[in-house]
Amino acid sequence: MEAIIWENDRLRLLDQTKLPGSIEYIECDNYRVVAEAIKRLSVRGAPAIGAAAAYGLVVGAKQIAANDRATFLAKVSAIAEELGATRPTAVNLRWALERMMMRLTTAPEQEVNKLLDIMLEEAHAIYNEDVQSNRRMGEYGQELIPVGARILTHCNAGALATAGYGTALGVIRAAQEKGKNVSVYADETRPLLQGARLTTWEMVQEGIPVTLITDNMAAYLMAKKKVDCVIVGADRITANGDVANKIGTYGLAVLAKHHNIPFYVAAPLSTIDMNLASGDEIPIEERDAKEVTHHGGQLMAPEGVQVWNPAFDVTPNSLVTAIITEMGVVYPSYAENLAKICGKKKE
Amino acid sequence: MEAIIWENDRLRLLDQTKLPGSIEYIECDNYRVVAEAIKRLSVRGAPAIGAAAAYGLVVGAKQIAANDRATFLAKVSAIAEELGATRPTAVNLRWALERMMMRLTTAPEQEVNKLLDIMLEEAHAIYNEDVQSNRRMGEYGQELIPVGARILTHCNAGALATAGYGTALGVIRAAQEKGKNVSVYADETRPLLQGARLTTWEMVQEGIPVTLITDNMAAYLMAKKKVDCVIVGADRITANGDVANKIGTYGLAVLAKHHNIPFYVAAPLSTIDMNLASGDEIPIEERDAKEVTHHGGQLMAPEGVQVWNPAFDVTPNSLVTAIITEMGVVYPSYAENLAKICGKKKE
Repeated sequence: MEAIIWENDRLRLLDQTKLPGSIEYIECDNYRVVAEAIKRLSVRGAPAIGAAAAYGLVVGAKQIAANDRATFLAKVSAIAEELGATRPTAVNLRWALERMMMRLTTAPEQEVNKLLDIMLEEAHAIYNEDVQSNRRMGEYGQELIPVGARILTHCNAGALATAGYGTALGVIRAAQEKGKNVSVYADETRPLLQGARLTTWEMVQEGIPVTLITDNMAAYLMAKKKVDCVIVGADRITANGDVANKIGTYGLAVLAKHHNIPFYVAAPLSTIDMNLASGDEIPIEERDAKEVTHHGGQLMAPEGVQVWNPAFDVTPNSLVTAIITEMGVVYPSYAENLAKICGKKKE
Repeated sequence: MEAIIWENDRLRLLDQTKLPGSIEYIECDNYRVVAEAIKRLSVRGAPAIGAAAAYGLVVGAKQIAANDRATFLAKVSAIAEELGATRPTAVNLRWALERMMMRLTTAPEQEVNKLLDIMLEEAHAIYNEDVQSNRRMGEYGQELIPVGARILTHCNAGALATAGYGTALGVIRAAQEKGKNVSVYADETRPLLQGARLTTWEMVQEGIPVTLITDNMAAYLMAKKKVDCVIVGADRITANGDVANKIGTYGLAVLAKHHNIPFYVAAPLSTIDMNLASGDEIPIEERDAKEVTHHGGQLMAPEGVQVWNPAFDVTPNSLVTAIITEMGVVYPSYAENLAKICGKKKE
C-alpha cells in the first residue's frame, strides 16, 4: 500500500483519512487537489508531504499554458508558493518545493517540455531518496533496539508518512528484519487517530505484534515497566536539536525521562531546519475545533465549547536521547553534531 | 441536573453515557438495573457510585419477598455482594454498601418494613453527607487556588460524579464563588470522554470559562505556562497517600512535577482505604477494547487489533502536593496525616 503513486504520468494520493476502513485514492489532475489533500491530511507525515508537494508542483506545471521559460518559471513559482502555504510546521514541504525550484531555475533548458521532464525527474529523485533514507535510517537505528524490545510510538511515522518504509516505523521494521522480535505499543494519537488508524494497520500488515493504547495510558505503561524505548518521527528539527512533532510527543519525552527510558527521534536530514536556532521559532499549526469535539462524525462535547487544538508540540533537545538520520545516529550536543552531519551531506 | 434522584419512593439515574447530547433518566425498579447502570458507566464517579449503590440496595431490598428478619438480611447481603462486584477500583462502592449493611445488621428492629425504612434513611444520609462533604472540601480547597488561576482537570470529578457539587470541580466552584475568576482546561479523557462530555458541560452551565483539550496536549499547555495547578478527584486513596484515579491522572502528575505545578487531589474520606498500605494493592479495572477502538460507534482501528484498556492508574504519593478532604487539606507525610484525619472522623 503506497501513499503516493506516480503512474501513467498521473499522481494518485491514498486518502489516509479513510483508513483503515476503506482504501481510496485521490486522482490529482490539478495541483489544487494536491493542496487540498495536504490541508485535510489525506496525505500527511512530513516526508510524505514533501514528496507529494514535489509531484504536486509537476501536476501544476503541466497545467500551465506557457511556451516561454520565463512565464513558465513565474507561474510554477506561484504554484510552489500556494503548495508551500498549505501547512506551516513540517519543514519538508518547503524543503522539497525549494529543491524543485532550485533544480528548475538552474536548468539551462529553454523548452517548457524539457523543463517539465526535469521537474518530474527531480520529484522522482526526492521520492526515491526518501525511501533510501528510510532504509538507511532503519539500518542505523535498529542498532539502538535491544532484542525483544517493547517500543512505544506516537502518531504514524511509517510507510504512509513517507515515500515508503517509514522513519520511526522504519527503525522498527529494520529491527524486526534483524530478527529482534520487537513489539510495539501504539498511542492512538488524538485527535485524528493516526496511531489507531495507521500505525496499528501497518504493524498488523507487517506481522509485528502491536497493542493499541489511548495517549493517556503511556505513563502508566511506563510505570509498569512495559516500555523499553520510545521512537517517534519529526516534522521539524531545529539547529539545536529541538523537535517539533505530533502533539503529545513532548509529553511522552517528559514521561520517558521520568522513567529513564530512551527517547529516540528518527528523521531524514530534510526534516532538519538549520535556519532556525531553536524550537521556539517553529510555527505551530492550530487546527479546527471540530477535530476534537467530533468523534466518528458525532458531536461529543457541548455545542460551541472553546477548544485548543495545536497539531504539534516542541520537545526540547535535553529530552532527546538521540536523533536517527540516514547519515547516522546523532547524539548531543546537537548544535555541534547536527551541523557536522548536515555539512557532510552537502559535501 | 442531578445524577441520582430518589423521588416518590423510586430511584432514577441520569444516563451519563448519553450526555451532553441528550438527557435521559434510567428508572430503576430492579437492583439489577442499578448494577447494570454502574457497570456501563451510566452512573460513574466514585462518590456517585457509592450513593447509587446504597439506593440500589434499597431498591433490591424492596424486591425481597421475606417476612422474617434473618431471611431478609441474608437476601440483602447477597444483593450487596452483587452490587459490590460491579466495579473493582472505586472503594466508595464497597464503603457505601458496607455502611448500609452495618446499619442494617445492627438495627434491633425485627419487621422488614421498618428495616426498609432504616435502609432508605441510611442511603439518604450517605447521599446528603456526600453533598455536604463536597461543600466543605470546596471551602478548604479553594484556599489553595490563587486569584485568576488556570486550572487543569482530568475526567469528571463534578456534580455528576458525586451526590452534588463535586470534588475537584467542587473546589473550582468554591473558588469561583469567592470571586477568584478562575478558568478551567478540561482534558477530554479518553476513552470515554468524561472531560469532553461532562466536565465542559458542567463548567459551561456554571458560567466558568472552560477550554477543551485532548489528553496529549496537557504537557504542551504546561510548557507554555498556561496551567497554574492541576486538580483531580480519586477513586481510591491508600493509607500512604497513593491515588487511584481515571487513567491519565498519573501522567498528569508526572508532567505537573516536571513543570513545578501543584498537583491536588480532592476526595472525601470515604475514598480513603486505610486497609491498603499502598497503591500496588489496588485492583485496577480493565475494560472492553471497543471503548478504545470505536468512536461514535464507528470502528477506527484495524479489526481485532490488540488493545490495553485500564480504566485507572495509580499516582504515587510523592507526586501529590496535597489531598483535599472534607476534614481539611492533608499534606505529606500522608501515612501519618491521613491516619490522623481518618481517626478524627471516627471520634
